[in-house]
Amino acid sequence: MLVVQKFGGSSVASLSHMRRVVKRILETRKKHTVNGQPPQLVVIVSAMGDETDMLVDLAHRACRRPDPRELDMLLSTGEQKSIAILAMMLKARGLEARSLLGGQAGIYTDGEHTHARITRMEPYEYAQAVRRLKAEGVPPEKWPPKDRIRRELEQGRIVVVAGFQGVTDDEDREITTLGRGGSDLTAVALAAALEADFCEIYTDVEGVYTADPTLIPHARKLDYISFEEMLELASAGAQVMQARSIEFARNYGVRIHVRSSLTSTEGTWIVPEEEIVEKAVYRAVALSTDEAKLSILGVPDVPGIAARIFGRLAEAGIVVDMIIQSAARRGINDISFTVAKSDFERAKEILEELAQELSAERVDGDPHIAKVSIVGSGMRTRPGIAAQMFRALAQQNINIELISTSEIKISCVIREDEAEKAVRAIHDAFDLAHLGVVEETLKE
Amino acid sequence: MLVVQKFGGSSVASLSHMRRVVKRILETRKKHTVNGQPPQLVVIVSAMGDETDMLVDLAHRACRRPDPRELDMLLSTGEQKSIAILAMMLKARGLEARSLLGGQAGIYTDGEHTHARITRMEPYEYAQAVRRLKAEGVPPEKWPPKDRIRRELEQGRIVVVAGFQGVTDDEDREITTLGRGGSDLTAVALAAALEADFCEIYTDVEGVYTADPTLIPHARKLDYISFEEMLELASAGAQVMQARSIEFARNYGVRIHVRSSLTSTEGTWIVPEEEIVEKAVYRAVALSTDEAKLSILGVPDVPGIAARIFGRLAEAGIVVDMIIQSAARRGINDISFTVAKSDFERAKEILEELAQELSAERVDGDPHIAKVSIVGSGMRTRPGIAAQMFRALAQQNINIELISTSEIKISCVIREDEAEKAVRAIHDAFDLAHLGVVEETLKE
Repeated sequence: MLVVQKFGGSSVASLSHMRRVVKRILETRKKHTVNGQPPQLVVIVSAMGDETDMLVDLAHRACRRPDPRELDMLLSTGEQKSIAILAMMLKARGLEARSLLGGQAGIYTDGEHTHARITRMEPYEYAQAVRRLKAEGVPPEKWPPKDRIRRELEQGRIVVVAGFQGVTDDEDREITTLGRGGSDLTAVALAAALEADFCEIYTDVEGVYTADPTLIPHARKLDYISFEEMLELASAGAQVMQARSIEFARNYGVRIHVRSSLTSTEGTWIVPEEEIVEKAVYRAVALSTDEAKLSILGVPDVPGIAARIFGRLAEAGIVVDMIIQSAARRGINDISFTVAKSDFERAKEILEELAQELSAERVDGDPHIAKVSIVGSGMRTRPGIAAQMFRALAQQNINIELISTSEIKISCVIREDEAEKAVRAIHDAFDLAHLGVVEETLKE
Repeated sequence: MLVVQKFGGSSVASLSHMRRVVKRILETRKKHTVNGQPPQLVVIVSAMGDETDMLVDLAHRACRRPDPRELDMLLSTGEQKSIAILAMMLKARGLEARSLLGGQAGIYTDGEHTHARITRMEPYEYAQAVRRLKAEGVPPEKWPPKDRIRRELEQGRIVVVAGFQGVTDDEDREITTLGRGGSDLTAVALAAALEADFCEIYTDVEGVYTADPTLIPHARKLDYISFEEMLELASAGAQVMQARSIEFARNYGVRIHVRSSLTSTEGTWIVPEEEIVEKAVYRAVALSTDEAKLSILGVPDVPGIAARIFGRLAEAGIVVDMIIQSAARRGINDISFTVAKSDFERAKEILEELAQELSAERVDGDPHIAKVSIVGSGMRTRPGIAAQMFRALAQQNINIELISTSEIKISCVIREDEAEKAVRAIHDAFDLAHLGVVEETLKE
C-alpha cells in the first residue's frame, strides 16, 4: 500500500503543529499496516504557517518588483525548512525518514518562474517505462534504475517532499515554484506518478460541506463528491482545493481524501463520478465574493465584436469568468461579464477604450457583487433546478443580475450585501443539510 | 579583472545592511573598471545576521539530536535567502545579477554533513582542463563547455554564490554544509578556481591588528601579513579568519584582502611571504581564552605512554593543542596539554581513567587559563625573542605555566585573569604599535 499525504501551511504552522503531524503519520502507518507490513508513505508539506507571505513581504521590502527567478530562489526556502524539520522529527521518533527537494524528487517544470508548470516527473517516467517493458515481456533485472522516491521508499523510509517547487528541465536546474495551490498539485501529481492507493489532503477544514459552515452552521459535510462537482465548486468559489489540482486528479484517477489535521474523523472523498452509486441531484452551494461585474452597453451587433473585447482583455492577462450577451434591441448588443475584483479597475479602463473604438453607448461597472452557485452532477438529467433556485432567491426579494449555467452548475450574480441571505435561502430550499445522507454510498 | 568578494553574516544582517553591500559592489565595479570594461564579480554571502543560529535553535527545539543530513537541509536555507535577496536588489539597481546555490556553482563535497570537505569544483576542473589543452595546442573551439559561473560572468552578470554549502558528488546531490568559517572557504576556493585577481573578505573589523583593538586601543592595523603568520595567529586565537581558509589560500596562492564592510578604507592584505619586502620580526600578539589545561602527573616513563594518552583523546574526538612533557625526575614523566574549554570535563574523565590504568600519581585540571602568543615570520632568523617575551611577563609578575614555540610563534599559557595585562605587556615590550610602520612594503 502506498499513501500520499499533504499537510498545508496551517497544519505545520509551528513545532507543536508539526508534532501533531508526526502523530498523524504514526497513526496512518499503524492503521494501514497489513500483515506486519507498514504502508509506504510519501508526505508533502507546505511552508510553515505564513512563512511564504513573510518571504514575499521581505522581497517587496528589498525591492519594488522582485525578479521572478530570485523570488523562486527565496520562496522555495519555506518548504525546504518544513521538510527538514519534519524529517528530523520523524527520525527522532525512531522512524526512517528522508526529506527531498522538488528537484531531488524528480519534479521538472518549465521556466515560468512563480507559476511554473510541471513538464515531467521521474517517478511517472519510471512507471511508464516499467509498464511498457512488462508488456514487452522484459524481465525486471533489465528495467531501468528506480527513481529517487521509490529508492527511498524501498529502504523503508518515509519520504518527505517539499511541495510547491520543482526545477527546470535543463542543465541549469533553476528552482521554480508552482504558484497558488502548488503543494496540492505536488501531492496529487506524485500520487499519480507513484500510483498511490489514495492521496490525503490535510487542511484546516474537516472536508467539503454543502455550504460554507461559517455561513451556514447546519451545513453538512459530504462523504463523497465527484471530481466534476468539486471542479465546479472550486470555480464557484469553494476554497478547499484549487481547480488545477482537482483536474490533475481527475485526469489521472487519483482518489483524494480531504480532511482535517486536527481531528481523526473522516473527511470528504473526491472520487470518479462512476464510483458514487446514488448521485445526489444537487450537492452543495458555493459563494464567491472575489468577482466584479462589468458591462458594455449598446454595442453594434457586427461579427467579431466579442472576440475583439475578450481578446483585448486576454492580452492584458485578465481572466474573465461569466460572459452574458443579450440582444435586447435589434442590431444592438449588451455584453456583461465578471472578472476578479483585483482586475476590476484595469478591465474597466480597457473596456472604456473599447467603447470609444466600437461606438458603444456606455460602460457600466459594479465591484459589489457576489456569485452564488449550486452544483450537483444529477442536474444533468433533472430539469427544473434552475427555476427552483430562482424561486428561492425571489422569495427573499433578491434580484438576479446575471445567470450562467453549465451541465452540473447554475450560477447567479447578485448584490454582494445579499450574498449570505442567498446562500441560506438556496441551502434551505434544496434541503442540503439532510438530502443525500442516505443516498451517498460507494460502489464496492 | 576578476574579483571575489565575501560578505559575512554581520554585513548582510538586515535589508539596510544589504543595501550597503549593493553600494560596495557598485563601488568595486567602478573602481576596477578599465577602459570601460567593468571587472567580473563573484560575490559570496553568508546567512543574514544570526539566521544560522536561529535555525540551529529551531532544530534543537524540534528534537534533541537533529539528524545531520536534515540539519544541512535546514541550515542551507539561510544562505539561499541571502543570495536571492542580494541578487534581486542588484537587479532592481539595473545590474545584471544571478544567484547560485553551492551545487549550481559546481561545488562538490564529501558526505560528512555539517562539516563537509570540498572534493571537487567545476570551475577549477575547467581551468585545469583548459591549461592542459592549451599546453597541447588544442584550439579554443575544442575546449570543453565552460562551468556555470564562467558562463554567467560572460553574460555580464554579477554572480552571487551561497557560501557555506555544496552538494555531494553522487547522483543524490545531497545538500551539505562546510562547518564553521564555511563561507570564507567558499570564497577562497572559488577565487582559486576562477584564478581571481584577489579575494576580498568583508567583515565587522577593519583588518588584522597587532593585538585585539578592544583590549589594546592603540593596536595598529597591519597593511600586510603573510599566510604563515596569519595561520599562526588564527591558531593562537585571532578570530578574523579560520585556519583552513587561510591554508587553502596559501596552497593556491589566493591574495586575500580582509576589510570592513562599514568603511571603504583599506584593510589588511594576506599574501605570500615573499611578496613582503622587509619582514617585521614580530607582527602581532594573539590571545585565546577558549582553552583549558590538563596534566597527568607521575606517569612511568615507558615507551608508548604518550601515544596511548593522546590516542584515547583522539578517539573521543578531542582536539589537543599544546603538549608539554617534562621529565623532572628519573623514570617519571609529567605530561600537560591544553584542550578546548568545551572539551575540558570529558577530557578530564578520560585522563582519570588513564591515570588508573597507567598507575600515574594524579590528574590536574585548570579551565581558568589563557594562551598568549607572539607571531612574526622574522622570528625564524632572530634569536632572543622568547627571552624578551618571558621578561615582559615577569616584569608584570605573570607566571608562565606552559610554553610552546613554533618557527614563527611563541605561546605561553598563563592564568586567565592576567590575560589582558599580559597582552598589553607584550604589545608594549615589542613596541608593536609603531614597529613595522616603515618596514611594511610590497615588492613591485
